[in-house]
Amino acid sequence: MRPEPVSRRGGPAKAPLSRRAIVEATTELAREDGLAAVSLRRVATRLETGPASLYAYFENREQLLAHVLDDAYARVDLVDGDRRTWRDALAATVVNTVDALQELPGLGSVALGSVPVLPGALRLADHELGLMEVGGVPAPRAALAVDLLAQFAAATAVERGDPSSTALRPVDVRSAYESADAERFPRVVRAAAALTGPDAAARRDFALATIIGGLTRR
Amino acid sequence: MRPEPVSRRGGPAKAPLSRRAIVEATTELAREDGLAAVSLRRVATRLETGPASLYAYFENREQLLAHVLDDAYARVDLVDGDRRTWRDALAATVVNTVDALQELPGLGSVALGSVPVLPGALRLADHELGLMEVGGVPAPRAALAVDLLAQFAAATAVERGDPSSTALRPVDVRSAYESADAERFPRVVRAAAALTGPDAAARRDFALATIIGGLTRR
Repeated sequence: MRPEPVSRRGGPAKAPLSRRAIVEATTELAREDGLAAVSLRRVATRLETGPASLYAYFENREQLLAHVLDDAYARVDLVDGDRRTWRDALAATVVNTVDALQELPGLGSVALGSVPVLPGALRLADHELGLMEVGGVPAPRAALAVDLLAQFAAATAVERGDPSSTALRPVDVRSAYESADAERFPRVVRAAAALTGPDAAARRDFALATIIGGLTRR
Repeated sequence: MRPEPVSRRGGPAKAPLSRRAIVEATTELAREDGLAAVSLRRVATRLETGPASLYAYFENREQLLAHVLDDAYARVDLVDGDRRTWRDALAATVVNTVDALQELPGLGSVALGSVPVLPGALRLADHELGLMEVGGVPAPRAALAVDLLAQFAAATAVERGDPSSTALRPVDVRSAYESADAERFPRVVRAAAALTGPDAAARRDFALATIIGGLTRR
């Protein structure tokens, strides 16, 4: 990370450029059209400058998006726990991560597959490692779990953030399962209600209880 | 699903249109540029017809992509297991799902958040439900697990399929963790090796063992 350059602009008309101002302008644009539609050119226009000025702060679009992502990680509400409550605290921290990622359309996709090295992500990872330490999860498993929980949070944000306009309603999906070929898919037909009944929160809580429970099984 | 229309074309120059021919043309285009770049217009051009002809087979691009996805699910190698081996069989089936999704750039993103109602996905779900039945997983949990395992497979395919050109090398990530602020992130610094050491296969196997192990814990 290079030291932040000092803007030579200023005066009454425009706020001085800074990493923070650029990240905020990107966030505003993304709220309108989603992060996928944000280009360095559009951010520069928003800030009444040229794209070249932005390159003094971020090497490329990908690095800018990495900072927007880290800004979200840095705002995640970290939940504390003790030996009795660490599982719930860890699950709640991941729920808060999903919520933070969902605030900006397209942010889940940026998070999925990104390698987190900026301070907001390190803060979150450190907190999760601390909870698992309290819970007695061996360190190598805890390290892999940080990765799995980050993948889960990002994937969940992507799933919820992209409800395509023609998405099937749950009642239609259930009806599709119930009327599937019972010779070929007998278990799907039998499980139609269970496959389609639980809502997004129930699915998320099941997933986290399963993953976190799996960390400490014998 | 409407019955498949009968093409009025034919003759020596062009193969007759069919759902299969359209799915295959889409797959070929996606192999070159990724699914995200595939439009109905490009598929039509590839098939030497107009986009309007395709709408007789698929209502829209999304429905076409759903069929391309289901084609991949239908090819997943299903691994059988008994009371002793069902966990390994389930993990191996999910690994094969990841592999099938990875064959086509962009397919993981289509899978993530799609609601599977076509036969290839039902076949896969039925197989997974069968293995969990053998393993004594209660039916409501098994149904939710089908969903979680599908999310995991799709997210893993997305992560691996999108290695951006400027992605950090593992050795650089480890060095970033090792040199992080030890006052603020002591556990990240200590766990730097564990956080960055395991390769993609080790992370995948840990994740599946954790999730599947979590299904049957007391």
